[in-house]
Amino acid sequence: MSGKTTRDDIVAAADELFYKKGFEHTSFSQIAEAVRISRGNFYYHFKTKDEILEAVIARRLAKTRDLLAQWEEDGETPEARIRSFIHILIVNRADIKRYGCPVGSLCTELAKLNHVAQADANKLFTLFRTWLRRQFTLLGRKADADLLAMHLLARSQGVSTLANAFHGDKFIRREVEEMCGWLSDRAQEVAG
Amino acid sequence: MSGKTTRDDIVAAADELFYKKGFEHTSFSQIAEAVRISRGNFYYHFKTKDEILEAVIARRLAKTRDLLAQWEEDGETPEARIRSFIHILIVNRADIKRYGCPVGSLCTELAKLNHVAQADANKLFTLFRTWLRRQFTLLGRKADADLLAMHLLARSQGVSTLANAFHGDKFIRREVEEMCGWLSDRAQEVAG
Repeated sequence: MSGKTTRDDIVAAADELFYKKGFEHTSFSQIAEAVRISRGNFYYHFKTKDEILEAVIARRLAKTRDLLAQWEEDGETPEARIRSFIHILIVNRADIKRYGCPVGSLCTELAKLNHVAQADANKLFTLFRTWLRRQFTLLGRKADADLLAMHLLARSQGVSTLANAFHGDKFIRREVEEMCGWLSDRAQEVAG
Repeated sequence: MSGKTTRDDIVAAADELFYKKGFEHTSFSQIAEAVRISRGNFYYHFKTKDEILEAVIARRLAKTRDLLAQWEEDGETPEARIRSFIHILIVNRADIKRYGCPVGSLCTELAKLNHVAQADANKLFTLFRTWLRRQFTLLGRKADADLLAMHLLARSQGVSTLANAFHGDKFIRREVEEMCGWLSDRAQEVAG
């Protein structure tokens, strides 16, 4: 196994643990255990948990960029692309019900820790915000594109938090339907 | 200082620290330091952090009941009462921008910790949900009162999470206005 691959394995394991157990609650040894490597090998790659966090955020940013590029390619219209964003609540509902949203819960945790990586983690939100803003602009809503992007991001975050507390599949599906209805109203305002 | 008061002081200090730093990140000694009592005196009242958490949740439940009773008394109509709920986003915006929502962030953290107190913490959400449901019923929306309550709770949670990440006062005010608009549309659907 090359050094590069071991490092990737560590970051992938940390990513999952930070999401499922929280950053603060995850220990060095839990990550080493998940990757099945020695402490020595581990320290060769990362000296502190903050270094791992930085790598985890970089990994999530890269994965988010890939996801947004995929939606861009798959969706024929801006409305269809925004619907892809709305539907991650359904696609990822099993994890969301257990652990909340990976972006929202990390940003909230780092804010409380007053962690230096807070600004970096918030870039995850900014990626979605910028992408949504562009889609709303393409939809013909240039003037309020950013407001609509923030509104939709907030709705999606709120559904994650409550789905995490109450575990309701029906609730998620109903809210997703409401968001899609809201979206098509916004599109029709332009057409009308 | 009576034993009762010292205990109350501990719980109040822990409540604030759990909110501002997170439950996991707050240590016994930080709480003792905030209350300026000896470790011995501290242990007389609480043996574990989980015991403190239980008391903190009980305190928050009591304070939430008081708050809801106050809104009930102050608001002449169900619509006015629901607006009181919406406006906590503005009233508490300074803390929300720094630390998020106390209810949402605690529930999310305890879900990741898979903590036994998770169900108790979720009762905080349930208090708001039940109260909102009753107000929507009084508003004449008996059939979908719970859906509307959950929808509004989710919107409020989402605004907290994004205000915490992006610190925008304008964003909060605009979303509060949108929620109030949404509310008066729901009321007019009944009247119309």
